[in-house]
Amino acid sequence: MSLTRDDCAARDRKDPLAPLREQFELPHGVIYLDGNSLGVLPRETPARVAQVIAQEWGADLIRSWNSAGWMTLPQRIGDKIARLVGAGAGELVVADATSINLYKVLAAALAMQQADAPGRTVIVSERSNFPTDLYIADSLAQQHGCRLELLEPEELLPRLQGPHGADVALLMLTHVNYRTGRMHDMAALTAAAHAAGATAVWDLAHSAGAVAVDLHAANADFAVGCGYKYLNGGPGAPAFVWAHPRHADRFRQPLSGWIGHAAPFEFTPDYRPAPGIARYLCGTPPILSMAALECGVDTVLAAEPLGGMAALRSKSLEMTRLFADLVESRCAGHGLRVVSPRDDALRGSQVCLARDDGAYAIVQALIGRGVIGDFRAPDVLRFGFTPLYLRFVDVWDAVEQLHQVVASGEWCDARFAARAAVT
Amino acid sequence: MSLTRDDCAARDRKDPLAPLREQFELPHGVIYLDGNSLGVLPRETPARVAQVIAQEWGADLIRSWNSAGWMTLPQRIGDKIARLVGAGAGELVVADATSINLYKVLAAALAMQQADAPGRTVIVSERSNFPTDLYIADSLAQQHGCRLELLEPEELLPRLQGPHGADVALLMLTHVNYRTGRMHDMAALTAAAHAAGATAVWDLAHSAGAVAVDLHAANADFAVGCGYKYLNGGPGAPAFVWAHPRHADRFRQPLSGWIGHAAPFEFTPDYRPAPGIARYLCGTPPILSMAALECGVDTVLAAEPLGGMAALRSKSLEMTRLFADLVESRCAGHGLRVVSPRDDALRGSQVCLARDDGAYAIVQALIGRGVIGDFRAPDVLRFGFTPLYLRFVDVWDAVEQLHQVVASGEWCDARFAARAAVT
Repeated sequence: MSLTRDDCAARDRKDPLAPLREQFELPHGVIYLDGNSLGVLPRETPARVAQVIAQEWGADLIRSWNSAGWMTLPQRIGDKIARLVGAGAGELVVADATSINLYKVLAAALAMQQADAPGRTVIVSERSNFPTDLYIADSLAQQHGCRLELLEPEELLPRLQGPHGADVALLMLTHVNYRTGRMHDMAALTAAAHAAGATAVWDLAHSAGAVAVDLHAANADFAVGCGYKYLNGGPGAPAFVWAHPRHADRFRQPLSGWIGHAAPFEFTPDYRPAPGIARYLCGTPPILSMAALECGVDTVLAAEPLGGMAALRSKSLEMTRLFADLVESRCAGHGLRVVSPRDDALRGSQVCLARDDGAYAIVQALIGRGVIGDFRAPDVLRFGFTPLYLRFVDVWDAVEQLHQVVASGEWCDARFAARAAVT
Repeated sequence: MSLTRDDCAARDRKDPLAPLREQFELPHGVIYLDGNSLGVLPRETPARVAQVIAQEWGADLIRSWNSAGWMTLPQRIGDKIARLVGAGAGELVVADATSINLYKVLAAALAMQQADAPGRTVIVSERSNFPTDLYIADSLAQQHGCRLELLEPEELLPRLQGPHGADVALLMLTHVNYRTGRMHDMAALTAAAHAAGATAVWDLAHSAGAVAVDLHAANADFAVGCGYKYLNGGPGAPAFVWAHPRHADRFRQPLSGWIGHAAPFEFTPDYRPAPGIARYLCGTPPILSMAALECGVDTVLAAEPLGGMAALRSKSLEMTRLFADLVESRCAGHGLRVVSPRDDALRGSQVCLARDDGAYAIVQALIGRGVIGDFRAPDVLRFGFTPLYLRFVDVWDAVEQLHQVVASGEWCDARFAARAAVT
């Protein structure tokens, strides 16, 4: 591969999305390839949160539930996220954590299936789905007398299309796998689920703001997603939840808290779910974290005049392809394998490498050099590429650092070997 | 009543808790009697949240889960709140919203009862409990083939002690009623519940930081509570959850998210609940809102060298007694009735008034004059008294303003009549 760093710099100069980087506070000397775990800080966020604290909370106090629009923040931010995932206005709300939202939609989807087709008792998912999704699904399966069946990605379509497809109640998948970066074909799998009579529930944690998603075009049934990864909402930012309008009004979800009531401030003893997606709200939203999330979502929406998610996706694919190519050419012979799909249609916005040994220590050595990726047990080096704020020279420089780490053997140094609690 | 404003000012000068007021940013010209709905802004909070945003998130990024202790914030803040409610270190965590935490503990308590005594099918609560508690309890009752039975406060003990007490699975109460300010005898009701074979679940939303609570002395089974009222954690601050150590390890709660796993970063496909109360965690905590909550909790802990919750409770009782006395003497003849209990043992940290008509408009007219209380349908004017930052002269001045509003009839003005969505 004859590409040079200058070629990468030239690509950056021609990149129409390059100005979007100016929206962020990026620490000096860091190449941040972990936006798939925690997005970086938008420049607008500190002042906005400070304003919410000083003015809306400090000065206006309780009145801000009306005057500052706190009551409708879940809908206001939800409508913005909807634009990024092919959902309509009024169909998506910000609420709680992804795990909790998944519990809500799985419970509603199971109730729907058990009303329509009580013989269906299987929740199909992927063996390497993000664990919390499996834990929550297992909890609900136990409650509803169902079972969770875990398959490899290539087994999913045959399972739905096979002779036993009629026992499947739900297909529950994370669109882009957290470990491998492999992306499912949402439209094809949803169609197969529907043909089998099952309901399709999608987790967009590694998709929203990273890859083009069109929930309506895919005819999905329910979706949840995360605010603190590619949406740059800050650590532990609230999550989101969507139900297709054909389902939104039909079922109650079990976390029937007062914010999802049709008239919360009537304080009636009986729960009357709000119309539409608002019934998926539960408790009082954490306003400071919500305010930061809105700033983060706005950084992604800023790409709309420049081509929006399609343009971001295109740049993301270029970056992940470049990274994988450079690793294979410049780090050859050092035991690193690209384990994310090379086929663009199957790859999210990350590239994972695997190595038989030393994956953890290599990630630590890279962090020591300012290249921040993360390790996923047992053998994965995970690198996320956020086209909003990364440059092609960052990709080049990251691989150069990786090459130096593996070529020098510096990762064998004891200081990189100790495992911290969180990696 | 021959008390004067000067007498109140003299009480303030002698008040050993008076310096605690300096911890807060109180808006000029406002007497804030709504700390039971949203606590005021601590002075420390803006700088602390700004530091979390700029340094921990902006500069240190993903590393802060370890280096800034984000992973253990639920426990760190939980241990602080534990000191305020008579719980031990390691027994209480901050997580999610109150409604969600209530769902967790009710599900665990029902599972416990159904394992030990499957014939018990009734959840007993109070008819005027905060609605979200009833909604959540009803949701779980439906799931478990139980029913929710709502009683008046004075009916609770007879129900538990009566001939049908053996059908009660759970007693679920909010310690201090949100509408009336009436406080239950936690120890007596818990003892009666236990004598009947039932489990006692307490919601401390209007208690934590406001009245003395001793969960261990009361021998309670489970408790939840709110971070944004008397704990001054900011709008929608995360809530907390406690299980008595005798129960904490016994049951799984259904919101089995990854943060409650024994080893979240092993990413195993099977859920293995963390030991103790940590299994009541679910999704990734909203760090900005958690940081603000810690500042708020610290403002209450600052009272510890001055007598702690006992001293705060004593001042609170003096203030609520003074307010009720002054309303009865200075506003006599204007149709206002004190509906909160006059007996100190039955009164939380608020005083509610009722009026046959005009309650909403009178609250609005008071807000127009800078005295912020709130309205609770259909006829209640609700005033919360936070001894951390209120002075006795504030009580005097609030009643003086109330007297002017009702004596002048200004509340009949049309501008006070329109109902906003949130009051």
